[in-house]
Amino acid sequence: MEHQELYTDLALEEREKYEKEVEISGVKIDEEQSEELKMTITTVEIVNQHGERAMGKPKGKYITVESRLLKENMEKLQREFSEQLKEVLLKVVGKKSRGRVLVVGLGNANATPDALGPKVTEKINVGEGVLCIAPGVWAQTGMETFDIVKGVVEEVKPDLILVIDSLASRNIRRVTTTVQITDTGITPGSGVGNHRKGISEASLKRKVIAIGVPMVVSGATIVNDTMEKLLGILKMVKKSSGWMEVLDGYTQEEKYQLFEELLSEETEQTFVTPKDVDEIVENLSVVIAEAVNRFCHEWVIC
Amino acid sequence: MEHQELYTDLALEEREKYEKEVEISGVKIDEEQSEELKMTITTVEIVNQHGERAMGKPKGKYITVESRLLKENMEKLQREFSEQLKEVLLKVVGKKSRGRVLVVGLGNANATPDALGPKVTEKINVGEGVLCIAPGVWAQTGMETFDIVKGVVEEVKPDLILVIDSLASRNIRRVTTTVQITDTGITPGSGVGNHRKGISEASLKRKVIAIGVPMVVSGATIVNDTMEKLLGILKMVKKSSGWMEVLDGYTQEEKYQLFEELLSEETEQTFVTPKDVDEIVENLSVVIAEAVNRFCHEWVIC
Amino acid sequence: MEHQELYTDLALEEREKYEKEVEISGVKIDEEQSEELKMTITTVEIVNQHGERAMGKPKGKYITVESRLLKENMEKLQREFSEQLKEVLLKVVGKKSRGRVLVVGLGNANATPDALGPKVTEKINVGEGVLCIAPGVWAQTGMETFDIVKGVVEEVKPDLILVIDSLASRNIRRVTTTVQITDTGITPGSGVGNHRKGISEASLKRKVIAIGVPMVVSGATIVNDTMEKLLGILKMVKKSSGWMEVLDGYTQEEKYQLFEELLSEETEQTFVTPKDVDEIVENLSVVIAEAVNRFCHEWVIC
Amino acid sequence: MEHQELYTDLALEEREKYEKEVEISGVKIDEEQSEELKMTITTVEIVNQHGERAMGKPKGKYITVESRLLKENMEKLQREFSEQLKEVLLKVVGKKSRGRVLVVGLGNANATPDALGPKVTEKINVGEGVLCIAPGVWAQTGMETFDIVKGVVEEVKPDLILVIDSLASRNIRRVTTTVQITDTGITPGSGVGNHRKGISEASLKRKVIAIGVPMVVSGATIVNDTMEKLLGILKMVKKSSGWMEVLDGYTQEEKYQLFEELLSEETEQTFVTPKDVDEIVENLSVVIAEAVNRFCHEWVIC
Repeated sequence: MEHQELYTDLALEEREKYEKEVEISGVKIDEEQSEELKMTITTVEIVNQHGERAMGKPKGKYITVESRLLKENMEKLQREFSEQLKEVLLKVVGKKSRGRVLVVGLGNANATPDALGPKVTEKINVGEGVLCIAPGVWAQTGMETFDIVKGVVEEVKPDLILVIDSLASRNIRRVTTTVQITDTGITPGSGVGNHRKGISEASLKRKVIAIGVPMVVSGATIVNDTMEKLLGILKMVKKSSGWMEVLDGYTQEEKYQLFEELLSEETEQTFVTPKDVDEIVENLSVVIAEAVNRFCHEWVIC
Repeated sequence: MEHQELYTDLALEEREKYEKEVEISGVKIDEEQSEELKMTITTVEIVNQHGERAMGKPKGKYITVESRLLKENMEKLQREFSEQLKEVLLKVVGKKSRGRVLVVGLGNANATPDALGPKVTEKINVGEGVLCIAPGVWAQTGMETFDIVKGVVEEVKPDLILVIDSLASRNIRRVTTTVQITDTGITPGSGVGNHRKGISEASLKRKVIAIGVPMVVSGATIVNDTMEKLLGILKMVKKSSGWMEVLDGYTQEEKYQLFEELLSEETEQTFVTPKDVDEIVENLSVVIAEAVNRFCHEWVIC
Repeated sequence: MEHQELYTDLALEEREKYEKEVEISGVKIDEEQSEELKMTITTVEIVNQHGERAMGKPKGKYITVESRLLKENMEKLQREFSEQLKEVLLKVVGKKSRGRVLVVGLGNANATPDALGPKVTEKINVGEGVLCIAPGVWAQTGMETFDIVKGVVEEVKPDLILVIDSLASRNIRRVTTTVQITDTGITPGSGVGNHRKGISEASLKRKVIAIGVPMVVSGATIVNDTMEKLLGILKMVKKSSGWMEVLDGYTQEEKYQLFEELLSEETEQTFVTPKDVDEIVENLSVVIAEAVNRFCHEWVIC
Repeated sequence: MEHQELYTDLALEEREKYEKEVEISGVKIDEEQSEELKMTITTVEIVNQHGERAMGKPKGKYITVESRLLKENMEKLQREFSEQLKEVLLKVVGKKSRGRVLVVGLGNANATPDALGPKVTEKINVGEGVLCIAPGVWAQTGMETFDIVKGVVEEVKPDLILVIDSLASRNIRRVTTTVQITDTGITPGSGVGNHRKGISEASLKRKVIAIGVPMVVSGATIVNDTMEKLLGILKMVKKSSGWMEVLDGYTQEEKYQLFEELLSEETEQTFVTPKDVDEIVENLSVVIAEAVNRFCHEWVIC
C-alpha cells in the first residue's frame, strides 16, 4: 500500500492510530469542548524527535477545531467560529510579536474542493500591513507553488505568513468539519493538489502558520476503509470465521496485492468530496477569512 | 441497497449487466470502432416495452461515443470528436426536420464536476435560430429545473431542445471518457445534481435530445465495487472458500445490511471524481459546444 | 439628439429637469434625510397622466435612497443600509399582502458594471417561498430576457417579483451612490444592457418591484454634459458673450448636428463607469441581497 | 491639465501628435498594410535620447498591429492574427536567443476591461519551459505588482518575460482594435490599473516584451476630446469667430481652469469602455494567448 493512501494532513488522525489511553512519549494532547457550538478543540503538541517519529509529523503545535456546524451558512454561528479561530491564531502566533502579515491562499480556484485558499484570499481586507496572494497551482503556472511564495516573501519581507489550504483527511467524517491550525507549515506531498516543497519556517525563515480544512479523502482511502470495515464486521460475526482464517493466512505482501487489485488505476486518480462542496467551500471561506481579518486587526502593525 | 447506488445514466452500462452474447428481446445493439481516435460508438436501441423493462430505461436510441482521448486538450483531436458528435446528433435528430434550437445546459456552474452544462452554453454561438439557457440548480434558484425549462420552452417555442448534463455512471472508467446522446431526454433521479422531473419529449411536447457525460460515480458505487471485486478475487482464490461459504450463508437482506454498515452516512453524500476534473470539464465543454455549434449551423433555420 | 442620450432610469433625475420650486401637477415629491448615514430618501409619486407626460415615466412610486457611503465595504454601515432598503421594500409592497417571491437578477455576470443583478441573486437565501433566477442577456441566450422571465413566472406563479438591475443615469455623480425602488417595474430601452420588453405588473399580471442602481452613464452623456457645462461656464463669463451669440444663432437642428459631430460613432457604443467598479458592484450586491433576504424573511409565506 | 489626461500607452499615438510629414530626429517609423485582414502594422523605433524626449517614451521598438477585425469572434481570422502577432514577437525577441519564458498577465480578473492579462494566462499551455502568473492588482494583494513579479523572476530565473496588460489610449477608436508589442516593458503610471513600478529589462535584468491592448480611455480624455472637437468645428464655421476670440483671450492657465471646471471629480475617477467589452476581452484573449502559445512552441527550450 502506498504511503499516500494512508496519508492524512491531520495530526489528530495520526494520533487516533494509537488508542486514546496510550501515552506517547513526546506527544502532548489536550481537549476542550463547547456544548453550544458542538465544537471540540484538540491541541496536539509534538515536543521531541520521539514524538515526530511516532506521529510522522514535524515538531510543533497542531490545534484542531471540529464542529459539524462549521460549514453551515448561519451568520451568527459563523461569527462565533471566526472569533474562536482568531483566538487560536493569536495563541499559536503569540500576542507579543507584531508586524506585517502575508496571507497565502493555496489551491486551484477552478476545482471546487481545492478552491478554499483562493476563496479566502478574495475576502481578506488587504492594506498596508496585510498582504495577500493566491499563487495558483502547477497546472496553471508551470511553477512550484513554493517558488512563487518564496520569491514574493523575499521581496516583501512579511513578519508572519498565514497559509490557507485544502487538506486531505483519512476519514470522510472529518471532511469539511475540521480546521487544523499549526505552526509547522504545510508539509509536502499532501492535500488536494500536491504542493511538493514545504512552506514552513524552515524554508522561508519566517513564522509560518498553516490553516487547513480537509475537503477530500482519496478514492483509495474509501476503498481501504471499506475493506477495513468489512473485516471489522466479519470479525464480530461468528459465521465469518472461515474468511478470517483466510485473510489470516495472507502475508502482509499478499494483502498489499489484494488491495492493489481492489483499487483500479482510475480510482487512484480520484478524490471523494461532498455533493454540495460548492456551498461548503463558500461558507468555510467566509468563516476563515473573517477569522484572519479579525486576527490581522489585532496583530498587524505597519 | 438503494436504487440509487446501482443507478447509471448510461444505457450502455445497463446493457452490460447482461452478458454480451445474450440477446435481449426489444433491445438492439450495434458497435463501430475507430482505430485512429481510439473510439467506440455503441448504439443501443430499446424498441418495445420488454426492452424497457429489461433495461430500466424508456424506449429510444442511446448512442455512446467512448474514447480515452475525448478529455484531452488537443485541438486537432477535439475537432474530430466534435465532427463525430455532430454526425451522431444529425443521425438522431434527422436531417429532414429543421427549425430553431434551444440549448439547455443543466447543472451547477460553481461545482466543477456538475459544471459541464453551463460551460457548454457559454460557448454556444447564439443567434436568431439558436437559443441557449443555463437554468442553474435548485440550491441556486429554489425552483425545479424542469419548471424553468418548461416555462421558457412554452414562451419561445423551439423546434428542438438539446439538453447537456453531467451524468453519474456506475464505472469509474467511464467517467469523462464517454458521451451519451439519446432522444429520450434526461430521466429523473439521475446525474450529479438531481433534476427530479424529466426533461423529455413526453413532458415538453418537443423533440428533446440529451447529451450527457458521466463526471462522477457515487461514493456508494465505489464502496459497492470494492466489495464486488473482493468477492470476485476471493472466488478465484482457492483459499477463500471459507469466506464464500459465509456470504453464501447470507440472505439477500443480510447482505443489504452488511452493505449499509460498510457505507457511512457521510459517504452516501459524496461523489468520486477525477483529481484534474477542472481541466477535463473545460476540455469536454469545448468538444461538445463545437459539436452543437456545427450541428446548429447545418440544422437551424430561423 | 437621440432619445437615449438624454435617457435616465431615475425618476429623480427626470424631476430635476424642472426647478425644485415648480410644482408639477400629478407629481408628488417628498424627501427625508439621515445625517448619520449621509443619506437622502426621496419619494417621487406620479399619480396621473399629466404626471406621466411631464416625467416621461409610468404612474407609480419611485423611491430613491442616495448616499455616498452605500458602496463602501463597511459591515456595520452595510447592515444599516440593508435595513433601510428593507423598510422601503415593505412600504412599497405593503405588509398586508404576503406570499412567494421570485427574485430576478437582470444583467450580464461577465460585464462588471452590468453584473449587479446576477451578483445579488448569488447571495439570496432561496427556499420554498423564495425563488431566484438570473436569466442572462440576449448575447448569452439569444432570447429576450422578458420571455425567459415570463415563461418562468407562468410556471412557478409567484405572488411578487423583485427585479434587480444595473441602471443608466444621466449624472455621473449618481452612479453607484443611488438605489431606486419602484413599483412600476423595469421600463424598456434602458439600463446597461437593453432589456427591450418591459418587466412590469402590466406585462406579468403580478406585482413587480424593481430595485436598480445606476452603474454607468453613456459616453454620449459625458460628451453632452461637457458641452452643457462649457455653455454654462461661458454664460457666466463676460468675455464669452461673443460665443453665446454664436450658439444663440444656431437653430435646434444645427445644435443637433453639432452634437452629432462631437460624438464619434465609437463613443456612442461606450459607457462610462468608475475605475473600481468591481469592488463597488460586490459591495452593493451585499447590501441589496441582505435587504432582499431580510424583506423575504418578513414577507414570504410558503 | 494633469499629465494623465493626455497620457497614452501607445507610442503610435505619441507619434501622431506630430504631423506625419515632419521627421523627428531619433524616431524611425515604418508602416505596412494587409488589405485582407484590414490590418496596419506600424513600427515606431526610438533610437536615441532626442527621440525619447520628443516621444516621452524610452528607447526601443514599438510595433502596433491595428485592425477593426481583431476583436471579432471568427476562428479563421483569429488564427491569422495570432500568426501575425507571433511573427512580430519573434521579430522583436530575435530567433537566435532561446530559453524559458515567464508569461505575466497583469490586471484585475474581476474588472472586465482590466481582465485581458489574467484571461490570456488562463489559456497559456504551461509546461517545463513555459511559466505563467497572474499577479493580481494592489486592491487584491496589498502589494505592488512589480514586487510580486520581481520575486518570482528571481526565484524561477526565466530567460524572457512576456507581460500582457490592458492599456489606456487617448483615442476611443484605438480601444480594442490595436495590439502594441514593445521591448521596453510596461512603463509606469499607465494603463487601466496603475502598476506603478516599471516591469522592464532595466528593473528585472532580463528581456521583457510587453503586449498591450488599449481597453479604455479615461473619462477625462472624452471630456478633453469633446472640447477639442468643439473648438475644431467652431474654427471651421464662420459664425464662431466670436467665440474663438474669447478662447484666444484665455491664457494657458485660464484654459486649464476651464477644463478643470468641465471635469467633475467623479469623471476623473471613471473610464470609458465599449458596451460589449466582456465579449471583446474574451475574443482578444484568444488571439493573444494563441500567439503566445505559438511563439513559445518555436522559441522555448527547457
